[in-house]
Amino acid sequence: MLYRLLILLFAALRVSALWPLPQSISTGSTYLQLSTTFDITLSGIYSPPADLTDAISRTKQYLFNDKLQRLVVGRGANNADVITSAASLKKLTLVFQGIEVSSISEEAVAELESRVESYTLKIPADGSDAIVTANSTLGLFRGLTTFSQLWYDWEDTIYTPEAPVDIIDAPAYPYRGLMLDTARNFFPVLDLKRTLDAMSWVKMSTFHWHVTDSQSFPLEVAEFPDLSAKGAYSSSMTYTTSDIEDIVAHAASRGIDVLVEFDTPGHTGIIAEAYPDHVACAGATPWQNYANELPAGQLRIASSDTVNFTASLVSAISSMFPSKYFSTGGDEINFNCYDDDNVTQADLAAKGVTITQALNSFTESTHGALHVAGKTPVVWEEMVLDYNITTLGNDTIVMVWVSSDDAAAVAEKGYKFVHAASDYFYLDCGAGEMLGNTVDETSWCDPFKTWQKAYSFDPTANLTEEQGLLVLGGQHLLWTEQSSPSNLDPIVWPRAAASAEVFWSGSGRNVSEALPRLHDVRFRFNQRGVGAIALQPFWCAIRPGLCVA
Amino acid sequence: MLYRLLILLFAALRVSALWPLPQSISTGSTYLQLSTTFDITLSGIYSPPADLTDAISRTKQYLFNDKLQRLVVGRGANNADVITSAASLKKLTLVFQGIEVSSISEEAVAELESRVESYTLKIPADGSDAIVTANSTLGLFRGLTTFSQLWYDWEDTIYTPEAPVDIIDAPAYPYRGLMLDTARNFFPVLDLKRTLDAMSWVKMSTFHWHVTDSQSFPLEVAEFPDLSAKGAYSSSMTYTTSDIEDIVAHAASRGIDVLVEFDTPGHTGIIAEAYPDHVACAGATPWQNYANELPAGQLRIASSDTVNFTASLVSAISSMFPSKYFSTGGDEINFNCYDDDNVTQADLAAKGVTITQALNSFTESTHGALHVAGKTPVVWEEMVLDYNITTLGNDTIVMVWVSSDDAAAVAEKGYKFVHAASDYFYLDCGAGEMLGNTVDETSWCDPFKTWQKAYSFDPTANLTEEQGLLVLGGQHLLWTEQSSPSNLDPIVWPRAAASAEVFWSGSGRNVSEALPRLHDVRFRFNQRGVGAIALQPFWCAIRPGLCVA
Repeated sequence: MLYRLLILLFAALRVSALWPLPQSISTGSTYLQLSTTFDITLSGIYSPPADLTDAISRTKQYLFNDKLQRLVVGRGANNADVITSAASLKKLTLVFQGIEVSSISEEAVAELESRVESYTLKIPADGSDAIVTANSTLGLFRGLTTFSQLWYDWEDTIYTPEAPVDIIDAPAYPYRGLMLDTARNFFPVLDLKRTLDAMSWVKMSTFHWHVTDSQSFPLEVAEFPDLSAKGAYSSSMTYTTSDIEDIVAHAASRGIDVLVEFDTPGHTGIIAEAYPDHVACAGATPWQNYANELPAGQLRIASSDTVNFTASLVSAISSMFPSKYFSTGGDEINFNCYDDDNVTQADLAAKGVTITQALNSFTESTHGALHVAGKTPVVWEEMVLDYNITTLGNDTIVMVWVSSDDAAAVAEKGYKFVHAASDYFYLDCGAGEMLGNTVDETSWCDPFKTWQKAYSFDPTANLTEEQGLLVLGGQHLLWTEQSSPSNLDPIVWPRAAASAEVFWSGSGRNVSEALPRLHDVRFRFNQRGVGAIALQPFWCAIRPGLCVA
Repeated sequence: MLYRLLILLFAALRVSALWPLPQSISTGSTYLQLSTTFDITLSGIYSPPADLTDAISRTKQYLFNDKLQRLVVGRGANNADVITSAASLKKLTLVFQGIEVSSISEEAVAELESRVESYTLKIPADGSDAIVTANSTLGLFRGLTTFSQLWYDWEDTIYTPEAPVDIIDAPAYPYRGLMLDTARNFFPVLDLKRTLDAMSWVKMSTFHWHVTDSQSFPLEVAEFPDLSAKGAYSSSMTYTTSDIEDIVAHAASRGIDVLVEFDTPGHTGIIAEAYPDHVACAGATPWQNYANELPAGQLRIASSDTVNFTASLVSAISSMFPSKYFSTGGDEINFNCYDDDNVTQADLAAKGVTITQALNSFTESTHGALHVAGKTPVVWEEMVLDYNITTLGNDTIVMVWVSSDDAAAVAEKGYKFVHAASDYFYLDCGAGEMLGNTVDETSWCDPFKTWQKAYSFDPTANLTEEQGLLVLGGQHLLWTEQSSPSNLDPIVWPRAAASAEVFWSGSGRNVSEALPRLHDVRFRFNQRGVGAIALQPFWCAIRPGLCVA
């Protein structure tokens, strides 16, 4: 039968399971075992940072515990003889070739353009030592991650079918992220750490943490304890300052910078629980007049007290995160809220300014606080496209979210930006609206964004060559109106790996080539305890290339 | 602020967490504790069946382990005094008022129309004994299920805020189901058992098990061992005969009949692995010419050998399940497959029959085997609407799946039927197509079917009163091309509870009234280890009635 021929054909093609695909890779067709005495050693570093030695330990655990069988019919049985008689690799050496040794954690939170993530990986076919080289510990870590994806299990023999391997690799863009909203619904620290682990496996570099919103303020800020005491869903649904340290350290040691977002001046209704004087139209109804989502509530940007409060709060939160970046949000400001707020109107009148001028001053103050702290502000696209903010620094980084079409307009204004467009990267789209009294089956950003859709994204579409240099990278995003820990893994993985590859490897690859590797990602994630979902029937997963239109 | 007033207003309204809603319920506003010595006793049964005493034990565990706080602001704190000073309920008595005692398991697999699920429940407000009455152990079990949904936790005091409770209840329809496809992707026994548990919590009565399909044959059939030996994805992805016994017993003891489906003559490509002579166009390409989904393959309905093989196989499988019902499938037959199959064409010529006549004979034989075994055949709608099958028995039950609009045509032909329509009840819709090489964002049955959509279903729409009597009930369905154990709970729950209520309580209720109760379902499921997802931000869940358009 023809399909049997096709299966044989595809089985003959070796399918490297690497994700994201390295910039340059050549592989052979020799089987190579991992020796039971296999070890990873360091060269060129005399006093290795603890996070590097930890990463080595984790890698060894993955290598021997993944137990991932090849996704082919027979799962490796057809090659049992050659697997078990293959030469053995006894050692991988990580060769540090940089000038000065920093920890992965330090390097992960450096300025985006200054990070060195490049590495090389060579695995000879004859069992002689494998080598990863890099000029940074972050680069060595990326190399370790690649190394760990090359191996399969057949009856407790760990092997690769494609030695020798020769890789030269570096990311196309420094920002490869995932955004998670922990305000609509709360996610325990363990869920965040598991997500960070998974992100690191596909070499993501940034966890964009939309930590607060109008629904809850789960972030404990030592200087402003009432914010979470009165604004978190409960004391158990709070990120304490030690939780934050834990999460930040977990992320950084895995090459991930935590970009925290304190969304202002909109999306702040919950602050009224602790500081009612700082919030206009808190809980006002009908909410549709005052916000895109209930409960309404925005910081009183015309109030000097509120501006000072917000700047102090921005300072306090930013001091909890080592990142050079901090998002002050700035999306979906509802000006009707301010029109109807007597306090704001009185403040505007007293100062003799318009609401736009007030927003400019507010932004200048909050971003000023960030600059004092040595941080670069990040904002949602409306701040540069819609609100006529003239006080933004040239260093401001913009998140394009409303539509990918808006990237060109942001570039036109000369800002560096991150692709986070709803039409490609919103993981929550396509599950109906969250409102309780409608039978509406479509969400505002329908349809569901498939991994293929994200994978087809072109980061420099409609940009000049010069504008293309403004692209820092991109990310998937999960807004959590209808998500909770129960569906975190399945709604994110393996879909979010699509953007991880686009922004590491560059765009322009086709989904048919990517699919078998993405199946591998999914099953390897499952083996490591992350609930990534099936992309196809298992019949298809073990017959690469057959299940196509 | 207005929203605070609304919160107070809704907090004052007691929100009963019962799901499905009983036919008749009256509740008071007196708080009542569950005594720490609370017990459940039986009356009228001298030698209680083991599954009833097990159900009582499980109920007690749920009562004390659910630890579900009320979904209101404060989670019960505002009523702490009245909770802790409330009268205590020490005993629930289950009063059997029937003639003869059978086990729940026996009653759960009886003929649909003969099952007695009705019960009454009375809980006095003063702490005197609560009583469930029923004429059947299945009815007592349904009453226990209702009882277990009434209680909340506040700092280890288990209480209800709405005593006295007086309920008279019985289902609107006997068939309230969930269909799961275990052929596209495999689900371990533990996943099925957890799903059966969850189904029982919302009083579902039928697990429609689409156990095999063209992709895999995970069902071990003792008489035909090669089917699973060669057709299961692996030996560990097989339901052994003892697994089947385990699953059937688990289901029946929870009031659930297992309706197994051996889909024929289409959707059988995998049978070619063990019995190539019985399958036409196995794996033929391009698959689109031969099947709605790959791999192609259909039983050779014109071959006497294949007809006899299929009838024997139907007998063998049906003998593994105590149900009075058995589905032979019958959807999506591709006649081009038979046109292009030389063997089938030769068989047709030798017998001098058309393919339709052959399909009639095939159906007569397989259904004949069922009738001999005392079973009622169940088929997909094409068998009565599209294929001109004149050999179907009048007892045949039809599953309406292509469109809810087809129910009237099935009723017109006089068959009893089950609502299983893709436009209301398909849980998999709206996540893109499964094919690997397309960037298509929409699935054939887009959009996603929200719980509200299913809840708005009217089982007797477009039917005469007489035709309405042909409705046996309905079900949600999960086809698993893009599902696996990782997303089983979140893709099914709490959505599938919507049909459970429509077909128990009857239709016509509005989603706003249902939503707070469905939040309760979700959180109670979570407490019991089932990963039901968030329907709304937690802010909304604890403020019933606010998050509406």
